[in-house]
Amino acid sequence: MPDLKVKQLLERGKAYRELRDSLFTGQYAPDLPDLPLDVSQLYKTSEILSQSQVEIVELDAVDLAKSIAQRKYTSYQVIEAYLLSAALAHSATNCLAWFFPLEAVERARWLDEQLEKTGQPVGPLHGVPISVKDFIMVKGISQTSGHIASSGFIPDEDAHIVAILRDAGAVFYAKTTMPQSIMHLETDSFLGVTSNPFNRNLTAGGSSGGEGALVGARGSPLGITTDIGGSTRGPAANNGLWGFKPTAMRLPKGMKGIMPGADGVAGAIGPIAHSLRDLELFCEVLLDAHPWDQDINIPPMPWSSVTLTKPVKIGVMWDDGVVKPVGPVREAMKDVVDRLRATGVEVVDYPAYPAAQAWTMIKHLYYLDGAQRLRDMLDGEPMLPLTTWITSGAQTQDIGSMWKLVNERDVFRNTYTKFFRSLNVDAILSPASPGPAGPHGSSKYWSYTSFWNLLDWPALVFPTGRKVAFNDHDDADYEARNPTEHEYYSAYCRDKAIGAPIGLQLSVPRFQDEKLLAVAKKINAVLV
Amino acid sequence: MPDLKVKQLLERGKAYRELRDSLFTGQYAPDLPDLPLDVSQLYKTSEILSQSQVEIVELDAVDLAKSIAQRKYTSYQVIEAYLLSAALAHSATNCLAWFFPLEAVERARWLDEQLEKTGQPVGPLHGVPISVKDFIMVKGISQTSGHIASSGFIPDEDAHIVAILRDAGAVFYAKTTMPQSIMHLETDSFLGVTSNPFNRNLTAGGSSGGEGALVGARGSPLGITTDIGGSTRGPAANNGLWGFKPTAMRLPKGMKGIMPGADGVAGAIGPIAHSLRDLELFCEVLLDAHPWDQDINIPPMPWSSVTLTKPVKIGVMWDDGVVKPVGPVREAMKDVVDRLRATGVEVVDYPAYPAAQAWTMIKHLYYLDGAQRLRDMLDGEPMLPLTTWITSGAQTQDIGSMWKLVNERDVFRNTYTKFFRSLNVDAILSPASPGPAGPHGSSKYWSYTSFWNLLDWPALVFPTGRKVAFNDHDDADYEARNPTEHEYYSAYCRDKAIGAPIGLQLSVPRFQDEKLLAVAKKINAVLV
Repeated sequence: MPDLKVKQLLERGKAYRELRDSLFTGQYAPDLPDLPLDVSQLYKTSEILSQSQVEIVELDAVDLAKSIAQRKYTSYQVIEAYLLSAALAHSATNCLAWFFPLEAVERARWLDEQLEKTGQPVGPLHGVPISVKDFIMVKGISQTSGHIASSGFIPDEDAHIVAILRDAGAVFYAKTTMPQSIMHLETDSFLGVTSNPFNRNLTAGGSSGGEGALVGARGSPLGITTDIGGSTRGPAANNGLWGFKPTAMRLPKGMKGIMPGADGVAGAIGPIAHSLRDLELFCEVLLDAHPWDQDINIPPMPWSSVTLTKPVKIGVMWDDGVVKPVGPVREAMKDVVDRLRATGVEVVDYPAYPAAQAWTMIKHLYYLDGAQRLRDMLDGEPMLPLTTWITSGAQTQDIGSMWKLVNERDVFRNTYTKFFRSLNVDAILSPASPGPAGPHGSSKYWSYTSFWNLLDWPALVFPTGRKVAFNDHDDADYEARNPTEHEYYSAYCRDKAIGAPIGLQLSVPRFQDEKLLAVAKKINAVLV
Repeated sequence: MPDLKVKQLLERGKAYRELRDSLFTGQYAPDLPDLPLDVSQLYKTSEILSQSQVEIVELDAVDLAKSIAQRKYTSYQVIEAYLLSAALAHSATNCLAWFFPLEAVERARWLDEQLEKTGQPVGPLHGVPISVKDFIMVKGISQTSGHIASSGFIPDEDAHIVAILRDAGAVFYAKTTMPQSIMHLETDSFLGVTSNPFNRNLTAGGSSGGEGALVGARGSPLGITTDIGGSTRGPAANNGLWGFKPTAMRLPKGMKGIMPGADGVAGAIGPIAHSLRDLELFCEVLLDAHPWDQDINIPPMPWSSVTLTKPVKIGVMWDDGVVKPVGPVREAMKDVVDRLRATGVEVVDYPAYPAAQAWTMIKHLYYLDGAQRLRDMLDGEPMLPLTTWITSGAQTQDIGSMWKLVNERDVFRNTYTKFFRSLNVDAILSPASPGPAGPHGSSKYWSYTSFWNLLDWPALVFPTGRKVAFNDHDDADYEARNPTEHEYYSAYCRDKAIGAPIGLQLSVPRFQDEKLLAVAKKINAVLV
C-alpha cells in the first residue's frame, strides 16, 4: 500500500511543521500584516526591537564579542535582541526550522554569571549568538535534513563544529531551513519555501537558504553552513553577506549520516556573516581548538593569518562563456574592478574556465549511485521540482567507472591548477552566479560556484553593497549563445529583481584559505 | 582463441625477461658459482669491488652526499661502485627489473662537471644513487607494473617524486622488481622470484621486494618504494633496513595508471634506507621542493623536524592476539624494550588492536570492484598463487555499499585514534610481522603492517641488528590459538630462517610523520 505509506509520511511532515510553527508564540509571534517585498529592515521598521536592540543586531560578531567582554551588553541582552529579530525574520521569510529561546536564554544567563564570577569571557565567542543549518547537530535540539523521514531526530551530542563553538562561548538558539535533497540552490521543503528578505518574490538561495535569509535580515550575526556546489556562497550572495567555503576538511564536520563515505565531491563547512573579519574569527576559533585531535581526516594545519608581502594581482573572469552575467552583475564587477585599480591593485582579465565540462563531471560525481541513496532517504516523499531536476540523468556507476571518474577529476584539478599558475595571478574574481537571486524555482545554473567544489579550491562571496535597480541594464535584447543561457535569460527579469543584493566571488588554489582572506581584505577596503 | 592469446602474452613476458637479462653483460655479469645462502656480504667477499668501492657502498646517503660535496669521491666513482654492487646483488637475488648503467654514468659525469664548474653541488642529493620500484616512472626507462601486459612502457616524463629527486642531484640506474599484482608481501612475477640476500631460501618481502634485496645487499643506498599494506615495511624488515610509510599524500606520487581514483585505502610512497637520517633526508628534499604546487592533492605541510620537548612514552604491543610473534621477534622486542628502559625511556604495555576486524575491512576496500581491474590489467596472464590468494573472496560492491564501507573505515579511524589517545602514549612499538622473512610463497599475514594503512597512520620499520640464530626459541611446541595462527606456525621453521634479520615497527597518529622520526631517534640511539 504505497499510497497509504506516502500519506502517512506527509501527515508526519505536516505535524512536524505545525510543531515547528507552535514554537513561535507570544513575543515571538509578531503580528505583521501587509508586509512589503523588502523586509530586510524589518528589525528597525517594525519597532518591535528597542533602539538598543537595533544597535545590537547591527553589530558584527567581532564587535558583539567585544561589547560583551567589555560589559557594554550582557549575553542576555544580546540573545534577547536576536530572538526577537530572528522571529521577525522567520515570520517574513520562513527561514527557521527550529527555535529554542528557553535554552538560549538559560545559556546566556549562565555566560553572564561566569563573566561576573571570573571576570573573564569563557572564550572568544562569549555570548555571540550563532545560527545553525538544520542538519548540523546541536545536542538535544530536534532537527531535519530537509526531508520528512529525517525530521524529529534529536541528537544526544553536538556536532564537532558546534561543540567547539559552544566551548568558545557561542549561544545557539535557532536551526535554519534547508531544501529537500540538500542539493538545491534554493530552499524548499516540507517546511515550506524560504524567501529572500530583500525581495520576498525571490529565493533566499540554498541549500543554506535559511541561514542566508536569517543572517541577511539580521536575525543572526553568524551562521554555520555547508557548501558542495554553492550552498554557502549562493545564499551569501543573494542576501548581501560574506560567505566562505574553505578547502574541504579544513574545518571540523557538522553532519552525520547524510553522505557518509561519499567523497567524490567533498562538501565543506563554513560561515556566513556580515563582515570579512567574522569569517576569520570563525576559522580561528575552530582551528585554535586543534580539531584534528578528534578527527584524523582534518589536516593539522593551524589557522595562520597571512600578511601579503607583495602587490596582489587579481584575475577577473567576466563571463564563463556559457551564461553571461546579467546587467547588475556586470556593473557590480566593473565597479569593483575600477575601485581596485584606483587603489593600485593590479587587475587583469582572466579566461573563462571550462564550465560545461566541469558541470558534467561534478553532476556525475554527485550521484554516483544514480541517486539511490537520496530516494531511500526520501522514503516515498514526493520529489520537489528542483530535486527531480538535479537528479535527472543521474547514472549508476560501478566501482570501475567511479574510479575512472574520480581519476578524471584528479587530472582536471591538477591540469587546471597548472593553467592557473601559468597566468601568474594570485586570485580569481568572478560572479557568484549569472544574476541576483532568482524567482522561486528557477535556480539551475550552479557553475560559477560548483566549479570550485570540483577543484576543492577555497572561495568566498562578498557583498558589493549594490542592489538591483531600475537604472541597471535590463538585458531585454540579449541574444542567448546556447540553450542553457537561453533558459537562464528567459527566467530572468530585472524588474522583478529590484532590491536584490549583488555578491561577487573570489577564489584561490586549494589550501590557500588564509591567503584568500588576505586578498579579500584588499577588496573589503574598497567597498563602500 | 584465448589459449593463443595467453600463449602470445607469455611469449612476450619471456622476451621481456630475456631483454632484461641481456642488460647484464661484461663487468655486470659476474661469474658466481656456488653461492652461499647468505649473500648479504657478497659486495665484499666476491672481491669484485675494490676496497674503496666497498667503503663507498657501506656509506649511507647522508655520508655519500657529504663525501661527494667534499670531493672525497666523485659522483662517477660512486655510481661505478653501486653499478657493480647492484649487478652482484641482482645475480644473487633477482632484484632488478631494469638496469641502465650508461645513462647513470653519463649523469654522474655531468654532475662531476657541474661541481667542478660551479663549486657547488646541484642539490642535497648530488651524486647519490637512488633505485626505483619498477612501476614508478623514470623518463626514458622501460618499466613494468609486475605483470606482462604492462611491460615495456617507456614513460616520456619522470614521476613527480623522481623529478624532484633528480633536481636534487640523484643518479638513477636501476628499476627494482615487484610482484604480479603489486599486492603480495613477496616478490614474484614473470621476471622471476626475488630472494632474500640474507638467506636466499627466504623471500625478500614485497611488494617492494626488489628494493629490499637491492638495498639490503648494498646495491643501493636509498630506494623509492610504495606501501598499501606493508610493501615498504615488509621488505625493510626482511632485509635489515629502515623503511618509512608516511601519511598518504604527504610525499609526491610516483605511479600513473595503476590504481587511479581508488582511494578506499590510500597507498603511500616512502623510502627504504640504511639509516634513520636517510629517511629524514628523503622527506626533507621532497617537501622542500613544495610538491603541492604541482599536485593539489598534497597538503602544503613543509617537513619540519620535531624536537621532543618532554619525555617519550612508548606503548609496546607484544602480540596482536591473532598471530603471536615467533621466538626471534619476541626476543628482539624484549631486547629493544630493555634497552629503551635502561636509558630512561618509559615503555608500557599496549593492548592488541582489533587485527581481525581491520583485516576484513581492508581486504574489502582493496578490491571494491571484485578485483575486476586487476583481471583486466593481467589480460589473461595466469594468476600466481599469492595473487589468487589475495583476490579470493573479493566482492564487487555497488556505490552504496562502497560508501558504507568507506564510512565504516572513517568511523574506525576516529574511534581507534580516540582509544589511542586515551592511553596517553606517544607511539606504538610492535612487530613488523609475526616472524622474519618466510619461505617463498608463505607470506599471508599482513595485519601487523596493513593495520596502519587502514588508519593511514605513519609507520616505520627499523632493523634491530638481530638475526635469527640457533639459540632463538624454536616455537616447536607452540599451540596455535586459531586457524590463522595455525597456518602461520605451520609454515614457520626457525632452522630454515637462520640469518634472517629482525625488524620492528613504530607508529604514530596520522600526520605526525615528523614526530614518528623524532621518537625513532630514541630507538636508534639504543641500537647496536
